[in-house]
Amino acid sequence: MKWNTFDPACPTRQLLDRVGDKWTVLVISGLIEGPARFGELRRTVGGVAPKVLTAVLRSLERDGFLLRRVYPESPLRVEYSLTPLGRSLADVVEELRRWTERKMDRVVESRSRFDADSKRRAAPLQ
Amino acid sequence: MKWNTFDPACPTRQLLDRVGDKWTVLVISGLIEGPARFGELRRTVGGVAPKVLTAVLRSLERDGFLLRRVYPESPLRVEYSLTPLGRSLADVVEELRRWTERKMDRVVESRSRFDADSKRRAAPLQ
Repeated sequence: MKWNTFDPACPTRQLLDRVGDKWTVLVISGLIEGPARFGELRRTVGGVAPKVLTAVLRSLERDGFLLRRVYPESPLRVEYSLTPLGRSLADVVEELRRWTERKMDRVVESRSRFDADSKRRAAPLQ
Repeated sequence: MKWNTFDPACPTRQLLDRVGDKWTVLVISGLIEGPARFGELRRTVGGVAPKVLTAVLRSLERDGFLLRRVYPESPLRVEYSLTPLGRSLADVVEELRRWTERKMDRVVESRSRFDADSKRRAAPLQ
């Protein structure tokens, strides 16, 4: 295999870091239903600063996941949509996104058990 | 749905950020083949600072993805393994990890096209 994420010098590692980023996941997942404008995406993703969203969109366009289309209307209409490569990424990150929603209850349970155990272990023996 | 990653106040968003992190992906994927000790994991993951690996392992244990087992030998043997919840996460993040290796060529292509286009657009018109 030419590419190997386990090799710290391999550029796939930086790509892995990028595609797993929460903004990437939310933007890509937010485009599954169809093209969207900047303002729509901003509302869908929720809590993203406009500057951050601009940077994320540009980087996703550069990587070939998004298409940015400008319609010569007044005012200019700019729409973002998934490319076939972006659609293939969407399949994977949407799985990850849904997984967190499906398993959150179990994670919450596990955290309280872990914290209770840590407290017990830290307490002086009777 | 009770949990919603698109809601900035929902704790799934922080979980999403965590499970998509490259160290999480590499540690969880690195445990698919079976339990491993700290030093083994460190070599498998590659390029991870011991302090970072310790923090990642503790956080993954707290979330319920890993089991940390201490064997009362001399010197102490400590092994990490996936829980059933961690195995379910492994299915998803291993997909993501493999996706980056499979698609890296196309990403590289797309980046050079994008950079060439940007240069052309920035050049003064003849």
